[in-house]
Amino acid sequence: MAREIAEQPEAVARTLDALLPLVPELAALARPRRRVLLAGRGTSDNAAVYGRYVCEALAGVPAALAAPSVATHYGARLDLSDTLVVSLSQSGSTGEIVETQRWARDCGAATLAVTNTAGSPLTEEADLAFVTEAGPERAVPATKTFTTALVAVGLLLPALTGREPEGLRALPDAVAEAVGRGGAAERAASVLAARRGGTVVTGRGLTFPVALETGLKLEETCLRPVRGLSYADLQHGPRAVLDGTTAVVVVAPTEGPVLPDLTAFTASLPATGAAVVGLGGDEALGAHCDPWVRGPVLGEALSAVTTAVLGQLVAERLAAELGLDPDAPRGLRKVTQTEARTA
Amino acid sequence: MAREIAEQPEAVARTLDALLPLVPELAALARPRRRVLLAGRGTSDNAAVYGRYVCEALAGVPAALAAPSVATHYGARLDLSDTLVVSLSQSGSTGEIVETQRWARDCGAATLAVTNTAGSPLTEEADLAFVTEAGPERAVPATKTFTTALVAVGLLLPALTGREPEGLRALPDAVAEAVGRGGAAERAASVLAARRGGTVVTGRGLTFPVALETGLKLEETCLRPVRGLSYADLQHGPRAVLDGTTAVVVVAPTEGPVLPDLTAFTASLPATGAAVVGLGGDEALGAHCDPWVRGPVLGEALSAVTTAVLGQLVAERLAAELGLDPDAPRGLRKVTQTEARTA
Repeated sequence: MAREIAEQPEAVARTLDALLPLVPELAALARPRRRVLLAGRGTSDNAAVYGRYVCEALAGVPAALAAPSVATHYGARLDLSDTLVVSLSQSGSTGEIVETQRWARDCGAATLAVTNTAGSPLTEEADLAFVTEAGPERAVPATKTFTTALVAVGLLLPALTGREPEGLRALPDAVAEAVGRGGAAERAASVLAARRGGTVVTGRGLTFPVALETGLKLEETCLRPVRGLSYADLQHGPRAVLDGTTAVVVVAPTEGPVLPDLTAFTASLPATGAAVVGLGGDEALGAHCDPWVRGPVLGEALSAVTTAVLGQLVAERLAAELGLDPDAPRGLRKVTQTEARTA
Repeated sequence: MAREIAEQPEAVARTLDALLPLVPELAALARPRRRVLLAGRGTSDNAAVYGRYVCEALAGVPAALAAPSVATHYGARLDLSDTLVVSLSQSGSTGEIVETQRWARDCGAATLAVTNTAGSPLTEEADLAFVTEAGPERAVPATKTFTTALVAVGLLLPALTGREPEGLRALPDAVAEAVGRGGAAERAASVLAARRGGTVVTGRGLTFPVALETGLKLEETCLRPVRGLSYADLQHGPRAVLDGTTAVVVVAPTEGPVLPDLTAFTASLPATGAAVVGLGGDEALGAHCDPWVRGPVLGEALSAVTTAVLGQLVAERLAAELGLDPDAPRGLRKVTQTEARTA
């Protein structure tokens, strides 16, 4: 896992080189459609959530997350003739996502596959495939396949609007800067290790999917229940569980419209007794966090990629601190099939 | 909370009486639109998730959950002229939901408000209001306002298709039957109280939102981190945390297309060491649960309502067993505003 985290600057650069030339093709596929539907599970679902914010918040195109059971169990016949469906799976062979993509096509959708595996079932049946260039990923917790999937999904912005996400060409350097934050990540891991009452990871908007993914990563590697959720949802109930035995990890961009409210929310956390760890954000947000794992300064659109790296570092360090093997967590396999009958 | 749980047969009956006559009006509002977008926070968000499955899985109409920050923070201009937006808030005055409804209208959407509060800001600005008849709700954890919101949202089915959900007229009796399951719920609460390593609540399809809501309810009342998630997502990572210190609560309908796979999944759980508590489902599923809190036999469409009642009973009993006050959990207020500046 540690090695794969460190490979991400190159993985992101290779992925950009591979996919930027395909943006015009995606633009042509998307042009006749008026909405985007994204489908994934686990880590890929978190990349899908990022895609949803890219489409709606940045490109102004309605977007949604698919509920795969609507396809796989209910076999609903929806009219998707106005829809671009984006299906995500690092292996390209997650059964229910392949099945959902097939269903979407039958319902009239145009289809884009985002996967790290060329020639996989997902790519074979899609109108267009964005194959990320993460290289082989051997650790069970996905790292570089997640960040390269974010890059792929981020290219929906130029495809839908003709505008590149701010800082796109500088992204590999920014990822390298994030990879270098191991010291602060180690301090964050120590804080989390000491708070045995539970960890909540929170964010909003374009970095909300990173809160989800960091929660999943911490849970996979440290074998404790961890949740990622919007700070808005944290206010509605789960806030009740925060006390001196718990920790909150706040994931934030260094700029953008959610940052002021996310900072105000972060400022309210120490009163609960919970430890507050910051990943990204600006100095004002960082002042309420201990420790604050500072990320590179980057436009909000791509800060999901760099803050994801910070979360990976913390998860990997936490596993080490707890004496666990981050590469092969108990009970998990690399390719997860949803249904017991196919597992 | 216990009293309000017991009031639900009447609350559901009153709500049906009030809202069934409005179905033709909703049908007229929905007819020129081709998709549905639902917005809520906390418990209302869980009712929105139910609405999503009603629209897609039962009515065959594309539906999605709104991301309020797209409206409140990014101010994105989406073309929602083809969309019916359903906004949910028991108080009718959750700031960001009122703001999201206003934004949706500005974006061209038709709007339906679902709330328990007549004359609230949400109703005043909507094209149509479905005011539920739960009566005043004093306990902080929402119970009867949730189930009556489910009933309101379930009426999207006849509005979109002309077909009533199976068993609609028998629903108050089925809810009364569920309310009578206190003994089994108490046994379930004892099991959960003894498993201090964490609780996960899971389901799929039309009862998945009840897994979310039961998780929220358990968390609010017992002040421990609890999560609701699809069993498909549980397979992708969070399964790693299951062991002899944890519990899984499975929420299931008594019939329908997800039941066989949900049963196979449930059968796989005891091997993890986790305690397995069943809410609803048939005998085959119940055989893998200890205890099994059996629900009334009901078509899948409305089983969300009755299984929600079972979850409420368990949450209320668990709070009692832990010596906590279920009516006023630490750190929560009845009406939650998302932003610190408005709280």
